[in-house]
Parts: sequence; structure tokens; C-alpha cells
Amino acid sequence: MEIRNILFVSPMYKELQVLIEKEAPGKSFRFIPEEKLTQADLSWADALVSFNLKADYDYSSVKWVHSLGAGVDRFLYKKEWNDEILLTRTICSFGQRIAEYCLTYILKDLQFHDTFLEQQQQKMWEQITPKLIGNQKVLVYGTGEIGQVIAKVFSGLGVDVYGVSLSGREKEYYTEVLKMDSHFSCLNEMNYVINTLPLTDQTEKLFNGAIFRQLSNAGFINVGRGASVNEEDLLQALRDNQVSFAVLDVFATEPLPESNPLWSHPRVKITPHISAVTTAKEGAACFLETLRNIDEDKLLTNKVDTKKGY
Amino acid sequence: MEIRNILFVSPMYKELQVLIEKEAPGKSFRFIPEEKLTQADLSWADALVSFNLKADYDYSSVKWVHSLGAGVDRFLYKKEWNDEILLTRTICSFGQRIAEYCLTYILKDLQFHDTFLEQQQQKMWEQITPKLIGNQKVLVYGTGEIGQVIAKVFSGLGVDVYGVSLSGREKEYYTEVLKMDSHFSCLNEMNYVINTLPLTDQTEKLFNGAIFRQLSNAGFINVGRGASVNEEDLLQALRDNQVSFAVLDVFATEPLPESNPLWSHPRVKITPHISAVTTAKEGAACFLETLRNIDEDKLLTNKVDTKKGY
Repeated sequence: MEIRNILFVSPMYKELQVLIEKEAPGKSFRFIPEEKLTQADLSWADALVSFNLKADYDYSSVKWVHSLGAGVDRFLYKKEWNDEILLTRTICSFGQRIAEYCLTYILKDLQFHDTFLEQQQQKMWEQITPKLIGNQKVLVYGTGEIGQVIAKVFSGLGVDVYGVSLSGREKEYYTEVLKMDSHFSCLNEMNYVINTLPLTDQTEKLFNGAIFRQLSNAGFINVGRGASVNEEDLLQALRDNQVSFAVLDVFATEPLPESNPLWSHPRVKITPHISAVTTAKEGAACFLETLRNIDEDKLLTNKVDTKKGY
Repeated sequence: MEIRNILFVSPMYKELQVLIEKEAPGKSFRFIPEEKLTQADLSWADALVSFNLKADYDYSSVKWVHSLGAGVDRFLYKKEWNDEILLTRTICSFGQRIAEYCLTYILKDLQFHDTFLEQQQQKMWEQITPKLIGNQKVLVYGTGEIGQVIAKVFSGLGVDVYGVSLSGREKEYYTEVLKMDSHFSCLNEMNYVINTLPLTDQTEKLFNGAIFRQLSNAGFINVGRGASVNEEDLLQALRDNQVSFAVLDVFATEPLPESNPLWSHPRVKITPHISAVTTAKEGAACFLETLRNIDEDKLLTNKVDTKKGY
């Protein structure tokens, strides 16, 4: 595939320009913010690099689309994809970033941060023994790039990490990987449940009462996609103590609307989709590597299976 | 050394009795709370197991004292120790517990918990990228049992861990171990500083302006002993942003008096000496192992050097 004209559409367009232009001689680039995008740019481009696609443009002359994020639901979910267009995605330190995000909120729970904060406010000295992370069971939905790093980090701290995937295929660092359609019986043993799954038809509202009712006072962390959670059911599970607390980084609608009751729930922690940010530096490095691999006709490890949706 | 009569003096005396009595046939035990201790008990005992020694008793008939804690300053610091009495201390999961305590507060800082909590209270959606722990430099004072585990856990997460010890001898998991009397020049590079040192004449008020003034916006965590910190100097360092925040688990006076200004400092986190709690189960296991080793005249790995004070 010959790529000459490359169009970057991103809020980070200036930083990306500095990092990329001089590293890819022989290519023509345009770097623009999303609001400046025109049909003329798209007709000029062989390749488009962006976080998403705007529905009201004609992309038919583009041969390659590269997602600046790890998730590609903004390109594929409930959309028609032209199979002749190559779709690749950014793979960088997402796994490590998400693992540290999950780790910090699980340790916060085990170390009783909230209780000690309350005690401090009351100048109260009352000993409670923190729990060791090595005695915990953590279930990770998704055993791909990101789940793998979570399992590596947590198992390195002595945690029993269980995985859930479509295939149930064993993977390194997991004590056991369960199949999606037969994992329910393990749920009530789990101390923490982490969702890393991409948004597809199969994962839409996957986390609903059917799963939550099997949990027993478990912490729930969502770093996958917001639309995979039925929010009503999550609130019910918090009321019923099937879920002891939730840490949510992703939401069906982002930014999370002010009217959403999750904002003010005392056992829900909200973060603004920051668990796996693409920095300009890492985004540029992954793009340049992908471009080199395309130019040299090498195997692309970050090619998206547009049928599966990830 | 022949040990027959063993006296436990501890708030945990009931739990310890259940765990120990049946495991050591042929020994006589007394398990009592601290307020019930009499001179008759001490005159009876060959061995005393406790967290501390009460000054107003005669311990001269005791041959062995076993500390239920890892720290032995309550036995040695500013006290005369009779060299004929063997002193041993508890070694168990302290290192892992303290490592997880330090990790949770460092991750909390890197992941901007306080900022995201404030934003949530205002229903504000504003992205800030958490920092990766692998880009941090952590300095640990003390490279013994506890420092070793801290270094292992943090280096496993990609952190450059530096140590400070009297000898400066290289140890596994440390990028570099510096000598106490020549480590000042590294201080301004450190993101986090952790004290694990025992309280001795050399570590009393070690953390004073001389050290704090070398730091540049570093987090300070004290899991060693409170008397190793000059509190006035710490408060000054917080004002001057040499120390960005402090997490304190130990204090010169415990419980921390209500009048102490640390309680209400917005950048000081207080926990009630819980980073390395001896659970009854672990305390019993370590005691029984030490007793076995004494009976079989084996090498004691947990024998205290009463001259050094640890």
C-alpha cells in the first residue's frame, strides 16, 4: 500500500506535528484540529489519523485509518466499515497506565483511605489493620493487550488474577481464564472485578443485574467502555451491596452529564476518562512505527479486526 | 539455653494463647494483659514475650525477651540492656505490609486522587494525565528486612529505588545504595522519600531541616519511628514546598495528641501506626519458630544486636 498524503485530525495536532513531520521524510502531512476538517482535506489524504470519524464526510479515498486511541468503537460500533480501508490502533503504555489506575483504587480500598481520612478529620486514633493485596482475588474481563498487563502487575504482587474472555484460552499471569458464557459461578468469590473489554454488540450492557447479582461486596472498576454497563443495575447493585464501590473512568455519554446520579453517589468514584491517555509522544511513536511497517510491507501487530470490532 | 516458663504480656493474649499453647508441648505458659503483670510472673518466667518492657519491674531472672513488634526501641532506646539476656524480634510480613502502605500513598499522589475527588464534588470533567510510577525516583532510608521488600515491590513496577544505609553496601533491587554521611547530593532528584529506620541515637531527629532543605517538592513517608522526625522542621519544609506532602504512620508521642498541628495540615496524612501491624497469627508463628530454633540451638535470624539497637 502506498501512503503519501497523511492527514492528522486531533486536538493534539500541534504537538504531533513537531514530533512527526521531521521523522517521516518523503511524506506530505496536514495537521489540523477537528473543527477545521474539510472534505478537501479528506479527498487529498491517503491516510487519516484521528480519535474518531465524523459521519458527515466522504472517506472513500482514504486507504488507511489509524486510531490515536486504543479503543476503536468510535470507528466501528454501530457503523458500517468499508473493508478495503485498513484500520490500525494505538498500542503503547495503555496497559501499564490502566494497571496502575486499577491498582491505586484497589490499594486505596485495602488500606482504608476513606476511614483514616474520616478519623483524621476527627483527630481520632483507632487502629484498623490494612488488608494485604496478596490475599485478594481479582477478575479481569478481557485478556488482551491491556488485561495482560493488569494480570502481570497484579500477579507480581501475589494476587490471584482470573480472566474472562470469549475463548477462555489460558494466558500468562492468569490463575485461570474462564469463558464468557460459563464464568458466573466464580463471581461470588471475587474481591474486585475490572472491565477492560472493547465496546461491541456483545459487550453492550454486559454488566447488568445478571452479573452484579452474583457478586458479593466486590469492588467494580470500569476502564473499558461506559456503554458496557447498565447504570441503573449498577446503582441497584450498590444499594444491595453486591457491589461495595465502583470506580468509573468511562461512561455511555462523555463528559458525564451533570444530572447523572453517579456524580454524587458516596461509593462511586468518577474520573474523566484518564486511565489510558494517549500522550502526543507515545501516539507519535506508535504512528511512526505503524507507518514504517506499512511502507516495508511488514506484519501489523496493531491491525484491527473490523468484523470483531477490536 | 533452656526455656521452660514463658510469659506473654500483650493486649492480644487470648488470641496468642489459642494459637501457641497446643503447639509447644512441654512448656509452661502464662498469657496475661499488660495491666495484670506482676513481679511474681516475671520471677517465674524464663522468657518474656511482649511489645515493650515496663521500667518498674525486675527482669533479671528472664533469659530471653522476644519483641512482638519489629521495632525494639521500646526495649533498647535510652535504656540499659543486660547483655546476658537474649533479645529477638518479630519478623513476618512487615516488609510486604509496609511496601503496600508506601505504594498506596505514592500511587494516590501520581493518580491525582485528591484532584479528581474535588472535581467530582463539583461535577467537573477535566482531564489530567496520571503519572506512571516507572518514571519516579524513590529513596528508602534503611536497606534491611523492610527496605528490601519495599525495593523489591517498587523496582518490580519499574521504579528506580535508591537506598541510604550506614554502610552504603549494595543490595538487591536497589539502583544504588548511598552512605548515610554522603547521600545529600542525591536528595533533590528524589520524587519520594521513605523512612524505615529504627530509632537509635543516630536516627533521633535525623529528618530535620538539613535533609528537608535538600528536597524539591518530594513526598515524605514515615513508617520508621516518629522520634526520627523533627516535626517543626517538617512543617517548615511543607510551607517551603521542599516536602509536597507527608504521610505519617508513626509519631514521637502515640496516640498523636489532639493538640498536634499535624492532624489538621491539609498536606499531611495521618494513620494510627498501622503500616506494619503484627497479627496474632503471624506473631505466634514467628515466636514458635524462634522458640524451636533456641531449643535446637540453631542460628537465630531475628536476634537483635543490642549495641546497634536493631
